[in-house]
Amino acid sequence: MTLTRRDFGRLGALSLAARFTPALNAQSSPRKIGYAVIGLGRIADIFMRGVQLASNSAITALVSGHRDKADRIAAQYSVPSGSIYNYESFDEIARNPAVDAVYVALPNSMHADFTIRAAKAGKHVLCEKPMSVTVAEAEAMIAACKAAPVKLMIAYRCQYEPTLLRAVKLIRDGSLGKIQSIESAFGFNEVAGEWRLNKKLAGGGPLYDVGIYSLNACRFFTGEEPSAISGYTSVIDHDGRFDEVEENVVWNMKFPSGIVASCATTYGAQMDGYLRIQGSKGSLELDPAFNYDGVHLRGRYSGTRIDEPSASHHPYQFQIEADHFSNCVLNNVEPKTPGEEGLRDMRHITEIYRSAGISI
Amino acid sequence: MTLTRRDFGRLGALSLAARFTPALNAQSSPRKIGYAVIGLGRIADIFMRGVQLASNSAITALVSGHRDKADRIAAQYSVPSGSIYNYESFDEIARNPAVDAVYVALPNSMHADFTIRAAKAGKHVLCEKPMSVTVAEAEAMIAACKAAPVKLMIAYRCQYEPTLLRAVKLIRDGSLGKIQSIESAFGFNEVAGEWRLNKKLAGGGPLYDVGIYSLNACRFFTGEEPSAISGYTSVIDHDGRFDEVEENVVWNMKFPSGIVASCATTYGAQMDGYLRIQGSKGSLELDPAFNYDGVHLRGRYSGTRIDEPSASHHPYQFQIEADHFSNCVLNNVEPKTPGEEGLRDMRHITEIYRSAGISI
Repeated sequence: MTLTRRDFGRLGALSLAARFTPALNAQSSPRKIGYAVIGLGRIADIFMRGVQLASNSAITALVSGHRDKADRIAAQYSVPSGSIYNYESFDEIARNPAVDAVYVALPNSMHADFTIRAAKAGKHVLCEKPMSVTVAEAEAMIAACKAAPVKLMIAYRCQYEPTLLRAVKLIRDGSLGKIQSIESAFGFNEVAGEWRLNKKLAGGGPLYDVGIYSLNACRFFTGEEPSAISGYTSVIDHDGRFDEVEENVVWNMKFPSGIVASCATTYGAQMDGYLRIQGSKGSLELDPAFNYDGVHLRGRYSGTRIDEPSASHHPYQFQIEADHFSNCVLNNVEPKTPGEEGLRDMRHITEIYRSAGISI
Repeated sequence: MTLTRRDFGRLGALSLAARFTPALNAQSSPRKIGYAVIGLGRIADIFMRGVQLASNSAITALVSGHRDKADRIAAQYSVPSGSIYNYESFDEIARNPAVDAVYVALPNSMHADFTIRAAKAGKHVLCEKPMSVTVAEAEAMIAACKAAPVKLMIAYRCQYEPTLLRAVKLIRDGSLGKIQSIESAFGFNEVAGEWRLNKKLAGGGPLYDVGIYSLNACRFFTGEEPSAISGYTSVIDHDGRFDEVEENVVWNMKFPSGIVASCATTYGAQMDGYLRIQGSKGSLELDPAFNYDGVHLRGRYSGTRIDEPSASHHPYQFQIEADHFSNCVLNNVEPKTPGEEGLRDMRHITEIYRSAGISI
């Protein structure tokens, strides 16, 4: 018989708690990592739902500029009102023992500040991608977390997705022969007024927000860093949305092994995320490749054909991600996607923009 | 009653020719353009089968270095033995009134020479892509055909494919909104010993042979010339195949409207040709996009979903192509894909190689 904390709650209600408690503590109720969620937008909502499914994680504090919203969400997740912070009072979180870690789900330009403040407060940091707006910020974040010392993980959920990991395994075990080319795109039609269109908050356009999925996937799938990278940016819709950031980006990469990659991203079209991996003995296609709801892997190699949609359901990716980071904190293990992984993407993003004549 | 030239032949054998001839000439047997096919490889075979289906075209001569092969094919297409030439005797074709035009299906480096010799012989030229190996050759080909004067068409069969034309129509009529990005790839796993791996014959690697489909399609679909273009080349398989030409190419393009494109091509993987066109109101996918056997168009826009495979069957694309060029000759009309269209691709190909550090 395996009991979860939720089962325990029900048992407690039946006044059976005293009888079961010792066994639970010893066997099946490990300490949960308590998260303070900073920024209560869409992705934070999904993350919190994922955390609820993770056996080793809990939402224990909220940080928001909107007290009403925070109160409403606090009630959902049984967060005490004393564990609700705003951006000014955030540093007081140092004195909250229920908070082991923070999840940074703020606009990009606020990632560095809150990661560094969290590190100074002695809290581990799970930070959304893109890690920062500049390389210098990313370096400062890594340094602050090392100095604290606290763990720093960048929330590259795709590097934990089982079907994407299955694709990586097929690449690594040689099923596809030698990989020659990877093609990927991801984008969407952004709405006027969103913070993503504000350069000060976002740093740049779709490359920061969605292009980074293709960039990171190419690096993850090849296991290499590009030795050459360059691209073009453009604005087509002169409707006020793209006064500060670019609308479209395409870029190429060449990896040391000779693998080449071509990628595209946009804020001007619903560009469903996909990945194509072309090898000498076969190919894989992930389409969709980056959806929260699940991905779909199709492939043919060595006479085999595969057609494998993700077996799990939303918000499983966030559950797996939270589970991994909580385990890293509990067992003092380095996350698979540490700050250095985010920094590498920031360097590549900077280089793509530089090649397109944009300095960041 | 509709009689074709072939029916006429049979009727002649029945000694009824004299009775039917006047009616035939007046009503139902338009003059057919007689083609000399130069180079009897795989694509020439498909072209000849296409010509057989075209009402205004016929195979009337063959040019080959292999007399046995030429004799065998001549029998199939009722080509008299006096209309079989080799590469040395080719210029005698000037005196063959059954030949109106040539179809150049030789290795790339021979396109210029035979196009210019055909023009000097007073024959119209339908030349396979890539038009030539260098920009200078392409310019010389255009000049020679203008001087003759004869028509020059580059065999961009995809610009005549009805389903691809349907996609172009959806783009032009605004169904997809503003196009933001086009992504395309096409390649295959080339076999050791093929002329395509010989730089002297091919000019370069997959960009010349298959990448040109993606390049041409992006230009055809946007209706624009790229204002910026660059890419990377690589060799991964050091197995002797790629001692002279590159194995992989990726490149990006930026068009004056702001449309961006990312493309890939290879000789190291079976890379089924595809095209994705991403617009602000919808997207189209052509997959396969460049197959002889037919293409498949899928799309969603303005609440509509389409799923349209090509309605015709192989070798319909070559039939349509021959039909178009024969009509141009018969009616003194400029082909839709004249030499200048091929020259533009040659300029872009040269620029991609130049950006990758390869001079051609």
